[in-house]
Amino acid sequence: MGMLAASPVFALDGIVEKKTFEMPSLTTTGGATIKNVRVGWESYGKLNDAKDNVILLTHFFSGSSHAAGKYKAEDAAPGYWDSIVGPGKPLDTDKYFIISSDTLVNLSAKDPTVITTGPASINPDTGKPYGLTFPVVTIRDFVNVQKGLLDSLGVTGVQAVMGGSMGSLQALEWGVAYPEMVKRVIAVIGGAEADPFLIGWLNLWAAPIKLDPNWNNGDYYGKTEPKAGLTEALKLVTLHARHWKWADAAFGRKWAEEGKDPRAALGNQYAIEAWLDKAAAGRAAVSDANHFLYLVKASQTYVMGNGASLEEGLAKLKAPTLLIPSADDMVFPPERGMRPLKDRLEKQGVAVEYTDAITSTLGHLDGVANIAKAGDSIAKFLAK
Amino acid sequence: MGMLAASPVFALDGIVEKKTFEMPSLTTTGGATIKNVRVGWESYGKLNDAKDNVILLTHFFSGSSHAAGKYKAEDAAPGYWDSIVGPGKPLDTDKYFIISSDTLVNLSAKDPTVITTGPASINPDTGKPYGLTFPVVTIRDFVNVQKGLLDSLGVTGVQAVMGGSMGSLQALEWGVAYPEMVKRVIAVIGGAEADPFLIGWLNLWAAPIKLDPNWNNGDYYGKTEPKAGLTEALKLVTLHARHWKWADAAFGRKWAEEGKDPRAALGNQYAIEAWLDKAAAGRAAVSDANHFLYLVKASQTYVMGNGASLEEGLAKLKAPTLLIPSADDMVFPPERGMRPLKDRLEKQGVAVEYTDAITSTLGHLDGVANIAKAGDSIAKFLAK
Repeated sequence: MGMLAASPVFALDGIVEKKTFEMPSLTTTGGATIKNVRVGWESYGKLNDAKDNVILLTHFFSGSSHAAGKYKAEDAAPGYWDSIVGPGKPLDTDKYFIISSDTLVNLSAKDPTVITTGPASINPDTGKPYGLTFPVVTIRDFVNVQKGLLDSLGVTGVQAVMGGSMGSLQALEWGVAYPEMVKRVIAVIGGAEADPFLIGWLNLWAAPIKLDPNWNNGDYYGKTEPKAGLTEALKLVTLHARHWKWADAAFGRKWAEEGKDPRAALGNQYAIEAWLDKAAAGRAAVSDANHFLYLVKASQTYVMGNGASLEEGLAKLKAPTLLIPSADDMVFPPERGMRPLKDRLEKQGVAVEYTDAITSTLGHLDGVANIAKAGDSIAKFLAK
Repeated sequence: MGMLAASPVFALDGIVEKKTFEMPSLTTTGGATIKNVRVGWESYGKLNDAKDNVILLTHFFSGSSHAAGKYKAEDAAPGYWDSIVGPGKPLDTDKYFIISSDTLVNLSAKDPTVITTGPASINPDTGKPYGLTFPVVTIRDFVNVQKGLLDSLGVTGVQAVMGGSMGSLQALEWGVAYPEMVKRVIAVIGGAEADPFLIGWLNLWAAPIKLDPNWNNGDYYGKTEPKAGLTEALKLVTLHARHWKWADAAFGRKWAEEGKDPRAALGNQYAIEAWLDKAAAGRAAVSDANHFLYLVKASQTYVMGNGASLEEGLAKLKAPTLLIPSADDMVFPPERGMRPLKDRLEKQGVAVEYTDAITSTLGHLDGVANIAKAGDSIAKFLAK
């Protein structure tokens, strides 16, 4: 019995498989052409005959399409929203066919389970990696690739598009880009635009990469890669997405190494510093620095509707929308983003719901780690 | 009349002069010896015969002793707290002799109006700049230099020590290091320790400097200096110390240059990005990168009382204390720092006051820019 209780309980029946979607050509919102676009995707549950039981999941900045389940029984952890995806869970795989897709310029370009197209990809015209010749892409471009994926499956409408953080930008963008296809939008820890403060923060996230001499203006493929800069960039993302409540509980003022008082030498560290170094270095090993910069640009340029003004984009959203902020979020502070978005959508007659249920001690990251706390709200919203 | 109204109104009678305090030798809390310590200081008002009308001001991370007045009539701006220092103002120069001192390892080592001792100083034993051979210094060391300055003036007690941000750490440290000398403590936008989250942030502030190959492990004097890294570090400080309310009002989603849509090229920026670049580059020109790293270390290692535990330090504070947070502060969030500090000090019988008066749109920076809003609280507290 003890053994059984300790065994991992799989939310999903069986093992998750990564699939590849290919588009011969994508014309970006900026007018550029990208040939041979490939992105990875996964699915959970079964597509019904009417093909009308689809929920689309869109991932966050450092995430991937791996939203639930495991690739192998021995995987250390399941996908990021496994707590809400599975039989009898809020995103019920007995009922829904859940599709989750990698974005263009996905950060984890070196992760063998991620399939993406971006600066690290080979440009078919030159046979060499694009580097900075890859065109700027936007959140709308991410959505357009997902649209291509749904088209390829013969899916003409979805029960919901749901995403967290950068995924919420895609979910909201779906609502205005293809309103006839989207029955519901579920936006978690995000907003209707990158506000100027976030634009500034994103600039700072990117800065360490450009300071690393190995970045070499994006031309580092086959050479020494800008690992130090990428690691510092990922440290910034990691800390910004968390909260002092987490830091207090996890570290206090503990030293990194016993006997090495941080007051005794400039290089002696506190535990939280060593943890940040290690956590970020691990992520850097599977990430691509140029992809990071393109994700920063896609996030900075986001304004709902991808038009000249937020007002214009907002007016196009008609689908019922569920907003799930984290009250302690420092990346998308709800009082700046989701709270005024709720008020604005209500004013224009959108059926909008709002819940603070996920707020715990992790700040922005509560949107990933504590999404199950909003499970009831999500299930009820989908049932309406 | 128009001319008169447009003329600068000097808070202080006459022009401020920078003076130098010299200590032949300082033994640091870490046990190192620093010879020929020199720091700059300024004063406003007159020392009375009893030498008992002194208020000591301690400065913030990127600040200096220039708290009020101007050096020359044509100076663009007066000292940082000029709004509360002067005849008839809360820190009334008709009544008080206000002393403001540069710290050790002051950031603005290249600013001709700043006098400090740190890694950029010449080590008298070698005739060369210290670089990273300069010993780690703590907030308590800053305080001990200020104690030397007061001793040199024959001042044996002060009406108050007041400081903002890193200055508040010094003010609180004064209260526990020399309790018999300190009648009152006024701590603005600070806390009783660097909490682990702040320790992490400070690590990130420092990171860009170390990524700059010109930093060269601190050995850059007489060579190309790590200006790019220092600029990115200062951009982080600048944004972290502000708030989205400020960013919304000052920039919106404006582009940096007309005709250069940020979506059109990776290098095209938003206005807030260009502003951060420019503001930080200006500060970097008078700053020293190693001094930045030593200030980060002094801030990270701060715990009130400079002992093994915060508890121990807190118990030593007896002086009446006025706490002035900014509600929107992201560097020292008051719900993590000053609010529990207030509760704790009350519990141990300290006469503690707390005001949210300065909160406006600037986040942490409200403690500098909007200090006048707490003027009445400060004046009443000093009169008690």
